[in-house]
Amino acid sequence: MDAIEPLRIFPGKGIEILDQTLLPAHEARLALRTVAEVCEAIATLRVRGAPLLGLTGACGMAVAAEERGAGNAALQHAAAKIAATRPTAADLARGVEAALAAALAEPNDERRRTVLWDFAVDFARRRESEDRALGVLGAPLLPDKGAVLTHCNTGALATGGIGTALGVIRMAWEQGRLAHCYATETRPLLQGARLTMWELQRLGIPATLLPDTAAASLIASGRVGAVITGADRIAANGDTANKVGTYGLAAVAARHAIPFYIAAPTSTFDDRCPDGGAIPIEFRADDEVGGFGGQRWSPAGTAAFNPAFDVTPAGLIAAIITEREILRPPFELSISRVLSKR
Amino acid sequence: MDAIEPLRIFPGKGIEILDQTLLPAHEARLALRTVAEVCEAIATLRVRGAPLLGLTGACGMAVAAEERGAGNAALQHAAAKIAATRPTAADLARGVEAALAAALAEPNDERRRTVLWDFAVDFARRRESEDRALGVLGAPLLPDKGAVLTHCNTGALATGGIGTALGVIRMAWEQGRLAHCYATETRPLLQGARLTMWELQRLGIPATLLPDTAAASLIASGRVGAVITGADRIAANGDTANKVGTYGLAAVAARHAIPFYIAAPTSTFDDRCPDGGAIPIEFRADDEVGGFGGQRWSPAGTAAFNPAFDVTPAGLIAAIITEREILRPPFELSISRVLSKR
Repeated sequence: MDAIEPLRIFPGKGIEILDQTLLPAHEARLALRTVAEVCEAIATLRVRGAPLLGLTGACGMAVAAEERGAGNAALQHAAAKIAATRPTAADLARGVEAALAAALAEPNDERRRTVLWDFAVDFARRRESEDRALGVLGAPLLPDKGAVLTHCNTGALATGGIGTALGVIRMAWEQGRLAHCYATETRPLLQGARLTMWELQRLGIPATLLPDTAAASLIASGRVGAVITGADRIAANGDTANKVGTYGLAAVAARHAIPFYIAAPTSTFDDRCPDGGAIPIEFRADDEVGGFGGQRWSPAGTAAFNPAFDVTPAGLIAAIITEREILRPPFELSISRVLSKR
Repeated sequence: MDAIEPLRIFPGKGIEILDQTLLPAHEARLALRTVAEVCEAIATLRVRGAPLLGLTGACGMAVAAEERGAGNAALQHAAAKIAATRPTAADLARGVEAALAAALAEPNDERRRTVLWDFAVDFARRRESEDRALGVLGAPLLPDKGAVLTHCNTGALATGGIGTALGVIRMAWEQGRLAHCYATETRPLLQGARLTMWELQRLGIPATLLPDTAAASLIASGRVGAVITGADRIAANGDTANKVGTYGLAAVAARHAIPFYIAAPTSTFDDRCPDGGAIPIEFRADDEVGGFGGQRWSPAGTAAFNPAFDVTPAGLIAAIITEREILRPPFELSISRVLSKR
């Protein structure tokens, strides 16, 4: 197992998360024992990353059953509340709904608590094995002895396993394929600067940080052999919502004929969205822009355009690496094929 | 005259700058009376912006003559020192060299001091009238009742006049053409968040700040009718070095058929550079990335890729707005024509 544990499950009690808003300066763990605490941790990004949000959603349902009892109405209310906390992440709603369905299939309210904790523990195990399968499949796509560019954080901190895009990078490094990893800062919440650089240092992977503004010239310089990111939601045609900034990277990579890969478990697909236009995009608070932490750089009263995600058109994506197989264009076909087996 | 005065000249004494590293929180003025002080202010970006650097370079030569005397060797030494402080900005070297040439044309060392101060005052007046001419020419290019996106700071703080790209925006606003201005934060030094938003607020122009990562989705959303930036150096074929992040904006604007404009005085052209590959790019310190001011976000010892500029290929540029005329592709021809009249 990995030394990086973003979420621990204590069946019958609650969960404990590594507060990611305090990294890399402080490694503080936080116990969550109520639905309100789970929602607060999700909304403020103490726990984040699409796959880890799925696990957190499943755990949140067990927490709800402990706190509020496991009657149908109580569970359904909690499910709606948790799933609405971050509307773009398909995994969060999916984790919540799957846990709810498992609980409702058990008629006995008392036994539902056990069902929900068992479901959460099993969910965590599946996350780990899915990540590993995805990493094994994806590693050979990265340039041999080359460098890769990634965005945001998609490592253990984002999934609870070895990660998605960063899991692929880690596998390629362990296989001796990869020479170097470049990571964007990822404004406004700086997950790349804070979390990805922390993980890369822990893993011993040679790494360089860059401002988001420098990604285009880095790609133009020829230093990067591939760009790889995670995904928050993938439409039926392959259009992919991911951390804001991804689309710009994909557009520039395409101009320089550098392959752009998405690494995401099949739970990220949402075939209710025919294309990217149907994916709801979360807009976040103005004050995340023009400052960070307690520090302000922009004048008081500054209005901001602050979407958490953007949509990369399928046409810019060379392949989508999943835990089952590597999907290639045309994505309508490859996605519908893999989903039919899910 | 504008209320925003980034540089004041006190002939026979020295110059005074608005310390731009402290904006928008503090409006502090700093007296510069030695070459070392001038170089420090340039290197640390207390004074910045390509055209204002040209003026600062010219003023620096007058400061040098006061401090070290106006003999040939002393002036040539000071010129080399000041010009080398920021290697990419063509205007800085040009301002220094023009002041040096004016001084050397005067045989009397004592009178050279007066020549240099007169040159600096005249340079400042020309900056103002050039900016205004550029703004008048450029304003009609902006979308009527539309919104524009800009990067970094190219306003009064960058030139000493009304600005280049931001001067065009200001003119369009004063003419009632412009509805809204979007400004990027511009990592790592946040000139957009700190300086452009401060200027836009002072000018009363409705403005919205965005993280650099959100520019691609803003453009994709259709909210922006044009992108306009300044330039630090323009090669003979139109390839343009500007603040890092510009190339990515131009690449995405092109994908969405949004015009991308450069606004820069003809002093920014460097016909000794046949194309962008010949423009030297300044790389800055690692610790500008992964933090800001006293705050650190990335782990200790983080290596960074931190170029101050990138190069936008001429093919992505719809027009270059100068103080003399609007240049259109093919830029080899239009640039060589305007330079032959310079």
